[in-house]
Amino acid sequence: MSAAPEEFLSKTARVDPESVQPFPRSRKVYRTGSRPDMNVPFREIALADTHSSQGVERNDSVYAYDTSGPYTDPDARIDIRRGLLPLRARWIDERGDTELLGDVTSDYGRLRQNDPKLEALRFGHLHAPRRARPGANVTQMHYARQGIVTPEMEFIAIRENCMREAYREEVRRLRHPGMGFGANLPEEVTPEFVRDEVAAGRAIIPSNINHPETEPMIIGRNFLVKINANIGNSAVTSSIGEEVEKMTWATRWGADTVMDLSTGKNIHETREWIIRNSPVPIGTVPIYQALEKVGGVAEDLTWELYRDTLVEQAEQGVDYFTIHAGVRLPYIPLTARRVTGIVSRGGSIMAKWCLTHHRESFLHEHFEDICEIMKAYDVAFSLGDGLRPGSIADANDEAQFAELETLGELTRIAWKHDVQVMIEGPGHVPMQRIRENMEKELGACMEAPFYTLGPLVTDIAPGYDHITSGIGAAMIGWYGTAMLCYVTPKEHLGLPNKDDVKTGIVTYRIAAHAADLAKGHPAAQLRDNALSKARFEFRWEDQFNLSLDPDTARQFHDETLPKEGHKLAHFCSMCGPKFCSMKITQDVRDYAREHGLAKVDDALAKGMKAKAEEFRAGGGEVYREV
Amino acid sequence: MSAAPEEFLSKTARVDPESVQPFPRSRKVYRTGSRPDMNVPFREIALADTHSSQGVERNDSVYAYDTSGPYTDPDARIDIRRGLLPLRARWIDERGDTELLGDVTSDYGRLRQNDPKLEALRFGHLHAPRRARPGANVTQMHYARQGIVTPEMEFIAIRENCMREAYREEVRRLRHPGMGFGANLPEEVTPEFVRDEVAAGRAIIPSNINHPETEPMIIGRNFLVKINANIGNSAVTSSIGEEVEKMTWATRWGADTVMDLSTGKNIHETREWIIRNSPVPIGTVPIYQALEKVGGVAEDLTWELYRDTLVEQAEQGVDYFTIHAGVRLPYIPLTARRVTGIVSRGGSIMAKWCLTHHRESFLHEHFEDICEIMKAYDVAFSLGDGLRPGSIADANDEAQFAELETLGELTRIAWKHDVQVMIEGPGHVPMQRIRENMEKELGACMEAPFYTLGPLVTDIAPGYDHITSGIGAAMIGWYGTAMLCYVTPKEHLGLPNKDDVKTGIVTYRIAAHAADLAKGHPAAQLRDNALSKARFEFRWEDQFNLSLDPDTARQFHDETLPKEGHKLAHFCSMCGPKFCSMKITQDVRDYAREHGLAKVDDALAKGMKAKAEEFRAGGGEVYREV
Repeated sequence: MSAAPEEFLSKTARVDPESVQPFPRSRKVYRTGSRPDMNVPFREIALADTHSSQGVERNDSVYAYDTSGPYTDPDARIDIRRGLLPLRARWIDERGDTELLGDVTSDYGRLRQNDPKLEALRFGHLHAPRRARPGANVTQMHYARQGIVTPEMEFIAIRENCMREAYREEVRRLRHPGMGFGANLPEEVTPEFVRDEVAAGRAIIPSNINHPETEPMIIGRNFLVKINANIGNSAVTSSIGEEVEKMTWATRWGADTVMDLSTGKNIHETREWIIRNSPVPIGTVPIYQALEKVGGVAEDLTWELYRDTLVEQAEQGVDYFTIHAGVRLPYIPLTARRVTGIVSRGGSIMAKWCLTHHRESFLHEHFEDICEIMKAYDVAFSLGDGLRPGSIADANDEAQFAELETLGELTRIAWKHDVQVMIEGPGHVPMQRIRENMEKELGACMEAPFYTLGPLVTDIAPGYDHITSGIGAAMIGWYGTAMLCYVTPKEHLGLPNKDDVKTGIVTYRIAAHAADLAKGHPAAQLRDNALSKARFEFRWEDQFNLSLDPDTARQFHDETLPKEGHKLAHFCSMCGPKFCSMKITQDVRDYAREHGLAKVDDALAKGMKAKAEEFRAGGGEVYREV
Repeated sequence: MSAAPEEFLSKTARVDPESVQPFPRSRKVYRTGSRPDMNVPFREIALADTHSSQGVERNDSVYAYDTSGPYTDPDARIDIRRGLLPLRARWIDERGDTELLGDVTSDYGRLRQNDPKLEALRFGHLHAPRRARPGANVTQMHYARQGIVTPEMEFIAIRENCMREAYREEVRRLRHPGMGFGANLPEEVTPEFVRDEVAAGRAIIPSNINHPETEPMIIGRNFLVKINANIGNSAVTSSIGEEVEKMTWATRWGADTVMDLSTGKNIHETREWIIRNSPVPIGTVPIYQALEKVGGVAEDLTWELYRDTLVEQAEQGVDYFTIHAGVRLPYIPLTARRVTGIVSRGGSIMAKWCLTHHRESFLHEHFEDICEIMKAYDVAFSLGDGLRPGSIADANDEAQFAELETLGELTRIAWKHDVQVMIEGPGHVPMQRIRENMEKELGACMEAPFYTLGPLVTDIAPGYDHITSGIGAAMIGWYGTAMLCYVTPKEHLGLPNKDDVKTGIVTYRIAAHAADLAKGHPAAQLRDNALSKARFEFRWEDQFNLSLDPDTARQFHDETLPKEGHKLAHFCSMCGPKFCSMKITQDVRDYAREHGLAKVDDALAKGMKAKAEEFRAGGGEVYREV
């Protein structure tokens, strides 16, 4: 299944036509910040008017957070061979604390770059790498702690705040307020709020100075819940072209970050293509590539080789590294009695290394050295949970929580260096044990953002693990997890294809949105209300377009009622033309209006329970009194 | 799309070949109760041995609760035209409190039965209907309250207890206990426990005396969480044959009950075919058929016509009726300001009737008359939530909870007649408001079993509402809901096809099982453990066969690694041959064993946290001390 170089090239030379199509009735719009080069993207979903017996009512557009980057902007020039425009380049440059390097500084990076056999595979327009000037610290956390509001922070404030503004408008516009929840989250996201959350370590902005193509985004529990999609080839399947396609496809459907977990051939070049074309932060697990470099023999790994891999990837622009520095020697025997031992790849590699060498892992021993690299490029830590449970039976056990304590200690060290940190979490956890994971994480890791894989709430449904894990993801998102790592239907069984990636992402967008609602995000419900209103008013097109997946919604509708006229019909196929509860409710409303019941209704709406009791006492006479 | 009579017949004359195929490596087994005609079905899933460096280990079969009826028994005679064997007939007869009627007693039933034009559609082997002798009450609740343990109750005890027995065995067999959760549920389900739960109204056994084909099952929160699948034609689509096929298909994948929600043509005959072939209880919403009888004009409904419909359906064998008697006149205006008004079909029909006639609904006024019918056939109430919210915005509002109070009052009346009751619940509810639904239901309805539709935790994903609702269903199941009504991917968009039915059911089996785990069901985790062990040991076939959907699991695996040999391979496509964390963990275990680390491990497993600290202090020296 390994492709010849030409095949890689031909596949990567074109953009996936499905990924650049604008969504129906949607338009890419930008809001400009305090400087003309700060243009924050949104997707505007236009809605039809409501026509009723009461006349015509205009329905406001809905603005959606948009992760799809320039691909859905018909005015953008898209050329996969050149990559995206480096929209943050000037901001980074202006700070004056970085320098352009003449060449990559990693040995392996140089080797790949100078290998003429790789010419056909290589990305054609490589950036010269950038690094902090000697002694400088270029992390967003460092700036935040100096009190600086970076353009990235302002960008994020606009991005996170947009729906809130629309919400405040809607509350003003509506005749009856109180549609939302009590707000636990800030009613307005200001640039200063973003800064303060980053300074406190409660949120991170993954933003490697060598990935200036990213549209800044934030991961923290006082912001919208984010999701990550994993892509990457393996030894047995897939090519660079497919991986770039999966990345654009993933961001189209709502991936806030993408992890490239490649473990197959040409990892270096695959990553370069992905980063240069990615509008979202890219994460990796550097130990995977390091292991490839030593032919898959875990015990042959060395700190020097690992260090070189970190530099190699940092200079390409990876925004966060999963590092399993919490897999400590004494914890390893705690896993021997488990039903499923160690299931984290990184964790098991480190465990094998530790046991073979009878010593503490080089990741743990060199943690401060790693921090030095992270702060020279602004790579964030994603502290890996190498001992996470791989089954319901192993959930919340001693091995898992011992490692979590260590991750807290490492967070403290990283923060000493102003390096951004998030904490990875499980895995497989039954529902009643999910909350404990969140609480322990907040305690042990001082509120550093939590980033969980699911968790799956049962093991018995391979083929449906997007669902088993989507349940756990929604719940832990509600409890406070900042980013949810998606799981596809192929989990445990095979590598996801494009359809699986989409299914995984839409499932996780559902989980993240449900969590935003449940956390009391003041504006999350806007889209729900707009969609439900459209549904109730038989505005089928609007219902499709407001869905997380308009294509599937439309296709499902058309399977039963394919005719165009049916999209305007005042009934749906579930109940047929005579029998629609929504139609009957409209009749009830019209009837109520004609008979002056609006007054009764108003009285009831104000008096609530007490009034209802009163009317109940009034019995069948109520309508004659009006 | 309406089919000619012959087409209906030809379609119904055969059994769906997909529904009678045994599951891979599975075998239908029966456990016989206290009498030879009581044979409780299970599905035995056989597992392969484990081969490791330590030798061969036998893996016990897993026994699964089996809703698929005789269809998956290769020894059963299946003939859709004759229906299933009436396995409860003798039990009902022996009680001596019923009589065979010479003819059906409903006017409409007689009309259909004597209409020669319907000959081709009619089920060919109709039972003579049975009814309680004058003055008798034939409900399971009535027997329970007399202290009688019926064969149905014993059957259920065996059915619910099987996994618990296997669990107790496994705990004994395993070297290390404590794999399960603290049991909140009874460790052993006895026939007396079943009786007591039914007597208290905390559980129901839907078991119309005219549906003797059912394999008895129970709905109550101290038993396994159950799921319901909706089928049924509509005015615009589907035939009898398709509906029977959907029923066998639904029970194959795990539907504990099936509701026939037909609103199209030939409702009477469709229902007859479904009931005669169904091994699970059948529910209906009689107002749908009543409305058909008056040409879809809600205000033309009368008590007499509705009453005749109840009798018609009770004599066919419907096991539970959804009745929207809680939609009271004064509550209707409470819905006028909602985003989505009244979305329950039954609720909106009754609302329209009440408003048109300016009076309380005939369902409410004649509730005691309805109880008289229910107890003459043992039909259970499923008290409908006609005012359930149809959107996140309308969740937990005054209209919904006012109706719930009334459902509690009606429960009290039904219980006065020893009629079984469950309570329907929403709908659309954001996660943080789900628990309140459960608590209010338990309070207002005196712990009568709750039966909810989802709830959907967000409105923004039409096309994926099996998932939006599966999240809410898992949670409310954990909180105590006894039965979860499935939602398919077509919800809000169209009528589900066979694939959609399967997807909805598997999703809800996941939700129900996750709830069983979270509630602390002492045996639910058995299958999770068996599957996870198989996964960890690369017993691919066992992993597939233990999945809720073996076909899909196998198919997904084979998409990436189609070769037969790969099903034995010690790696999977996610990571490739060199790079498998499970393989590495096995290496770690082998290594640990060789180096005598088992002792360290034992010490750690016993001493837990304190020991870990000790070893942490010992640092890199730990292994040399052994």
